Amino acid sequence: MRAGLLIIGSEILSGRTPDKNIEALATALRGKGMLIGKVVVIKDDIATIVENMRALMQEFQWTFCSGGMGPTRDDMTKQALCQLAGVPLEENQQAEKLALLHYQRYGRTWTRETNAYNLIPRGVIPLENPAGLAPGLFFTGEGRQLFCLPGVPREFKEMLEQSTLPLVEQHPAFSKATIDYLTIRTYGVPEEKIFFQLCPKLWDDLEKFGEVSSLPHTVGIDIIVRLKEGLAKHETEQALKALPSLAPLLPNIWQWGPLTFQEYLIELCARKNVKIAVAESCTGGLLAHKITMVPGASQVFLGAVVSYDNEIKQEILQVRSQTLQAYGAVSVEVASEMAKNILQNFKADFSLSTTGIAGPEGGTEQKPVGMVCIATCTRDLAEAKIYHMKGDRALLKERFSDRALLDLILRVENSPTY
Amino acid sequence: MRAGLLIIGSEILSGRTPDKNIEALATALRGKGMLIGKVVVIKDDIATIVENMRALMQEFQWTFCSGGMGPTRDDMTKQALCQLAGVPLEENQQAEKLALLHYQRYGRTWTRETNAYNLIPRGVIPLENPAGLAPGLFFTGEGRQLFCLPGVPREFKEMLEQSTLPLVEQHPAFSKATIDYLTIRTYGVPEEKIFFQLCPKLWDDLEKFGEVSSLPHTVGIDIIVRLKEGLAKHETEQALKALPSLAPLLPNIWQWGPLTFQEYLIELCARKNVKIAVAESCTGGLLAHKITMVPGASQVFLGAVVSYDNEIKQEILQVRSQTLQAYGAVSVEVASEMAKNILQNFKADFSLSTTGIAGPEGGTEQKPVGMVCIATCTRDLAEAKIYHMKGDRALLKERFSDRALLDLILRVENSPTY
Repeated sequence: MRAGLLIIGSEILSGRTPDKNIEALATALRGKGMLIGKVVVIKDDIATIVENMRALMQEFQWTFCSGGMGPTRDDMTKQALCQLAGVPLEENQQAEKLALLHYQRYGRTWTRETNAYNLIPRGVIPLENPAGLAPGLFFTGEGRQLFCLPGVPREFKEMLEQSTLPLVEQHPAFSKATIDYLTIRTYGVPEEKIFFQLCPKLWDDLEKFGEVSSLPHTVGIDIIVRLKEGLAKHETEQALKALPSLAPLLPNIWQWGPLTFQEYLIELCARKNVKIAVAESCTGGLLAHKITMVPGASQVFLGAVVSYDNEIKQEILQVRSQTLQAYGAVSVEVASEMAKNILQNFKADFSLSTTGIAGPEGGTEQKPVGMVCIATCTRDLAEAKIYHMKGDRALLKERFSDRALLDLILRVENSPTY
Repeated sequence: MRAGLLIIGSEILSGRTPDKNIEALATALRGKGMLIGKVVVIKDDIATIVENMRALMQEFQWTFCSGGMGPTRDDMTKQALCQLAGVPLEENQQAEKLALLHYQRYGRTWTRETNAYNLIPRGVIPLENPAGLAPGLFFTGEGRQLFCLPGVPREFKEMLEQSTLPLVEQHPAFSKATIDYLTIRTYGVPEEKIFFQLCPKLWDDLEKFGEVSSLPHTVGIDIIVRLKEGLAKHETEQALKALPSLAPLLPNIWQWGPLTFQEYLIELCARKNVKIAVAESCTGGLLAHKITMVPGASQVFLGAVVSYDNEIKQEILQVRSQTLQAYGAVSVEVASEMAKNILQNFKADFSLSTTGIAGPEGGTEQKPVGMVCIATCTRDLAEAKIYHMKGDRALLKERFSDRALLDLILRVENSPTY
């Protein structure tokens, strides 16, 4: 079953606010065996909202709207729903009760003067907002269902999970299904080389198991198979692993599964019971940020030094001034010293360091923007590598840090545990 | 003038890959006086692509497509364009030249066996890809223009700026316009309080100057006015600043302008010629990452210590064990010591520290998830504050770090320069 998503918000169209609700809806629906069939993003304008609500409801059994539910004049979803349904706004006891309740929870007082959260289109059901003030709305028209939720990502997500999907699941139009993906995460081989040189029969073989996609990521290609209904995940994975057409790619697969680099790293280190520390220059904190996005990272991650300035490299990380002078800050020698010293200072089992040029300034002919030195270190030995990558500052920071995490993963996997 | 954007990609609909091309297109178009009127995201399916290309071309003079341009079988945009235009794929000399050129640039060899980049729909113009391998496509039908670009964000952006928009600007259907926004960034007052209590006439007053939006952000409300054509930006800003209806909000405005916290902070510190350093616990590197996203941050930013583990707080940041034992790691006392010590160790003029609970685990009744202590420090004095915020781990890290950056901005603005 597929659903439509209507995102109402000039701020998304203007590029000022990045959307986060597609991911939230897709993730929540997947758990119920549903997929998003189409997303439409439109400006805050009543006629446009009505037209697109109608079109999506014609196309899909379930339509979800986000945005336009707040109290200010640029919030028009309620008025649009009145036009769509051909009904007036009217007082609704349940909506009033929810408004009072939400305000109480935030220690504030709701009155009719505060806003019009008590008024909703006639015949529409108000939905509890577990994370904010504006209630949601649930409308049924010509046998199709429309849910209007707030656009603020946290409110959208929590209302979806707590008040909306339970209604979907109980609805007679809902039928439960299972959606499973197999993800093969690779590195070091371009897309064309995989499918046209190394594994020319792979795509055909994978298609027998489901819909195949090939997605270039920061440091490699992900191959994803959406399994045909009824195929068991574990058995299919075993079957894929045994495919002769996949064999040439095996050395470049770092994970059978959908985890991010940091999620996989934390799981690996927790399993091996080792502690890690990080010394960052060009990645500027992004490595530590990625690692600490994983709940439970504190079991494994001791901390980091971001030595952005060269003096910090010397004084806090004790990189020798001779090394800096002889080889420059962006060098395998400096990367190695950074990794060695952070390991010692933080008493870690493994460490990781980056030093490179993220641009836009600072590149030279010998050390251009996009060059990075990444070192991994065990208690015995530091190993450093040089990579050259492309992209703007933001993308280079992403690529540098993902490649660094991958290097640490490979190092931890291939090292004895103490 | 408004344009349509068709995003082709099951990976976006599945929530696995967040979209970045809306922002890229919106930003690039704004510079030409154009806005995005509608975005549609669809799966990789020829019939669906054709139908939605046609619908957007009927609605808009200019339609941009992203995705489905690669060499693998899930890339179908070229085939869809053939169906839309009712033409076959055919060899194109210019496309072949571009393919050869792109491959040369990456030090690789293109042949007809590598992929079919030399084949494009008859009558369609190939576009140079400055950042990747697949050429773009430019199609005109019934007086409307359609551009197909790769979905990979870096390729989309560079092809847009370098090969696509120059064609738009030279086109007879293009007419130049100016789009200007005024942004008022506030903190500490909820949306309803601003517009219904503090400044009840503000919205009416602002609407005289253009279209008004009110956008809740991590630590405050942004009020944005898209100026009516012909209004001068600077003069209008002066007029807004003098509005009596805005006066009660003035103490809560931290910026007249669209800069992020980190961009504003770096500019401020560069102007004041001061150096900063950061000690992070719960934000786990995000503060340093945000700061180092700004080109030129190295002028101002010395570095950071991410003291995720308590031992690192003691051994690397020299937080006293008595302080940790008496008050706990999440306390204004520990935050203050972290800020003082990083200032001294890094020889900074100002410093910033965070210690808090980002969850999902680790909260207690007295120190719940969402509590954070933020300290700012000058050479004279550390000041620490406690905040309570809501959200999941990712959102709390965002909110903690934005609030910390704001606190540092206010501190630097209100401190004498040495």
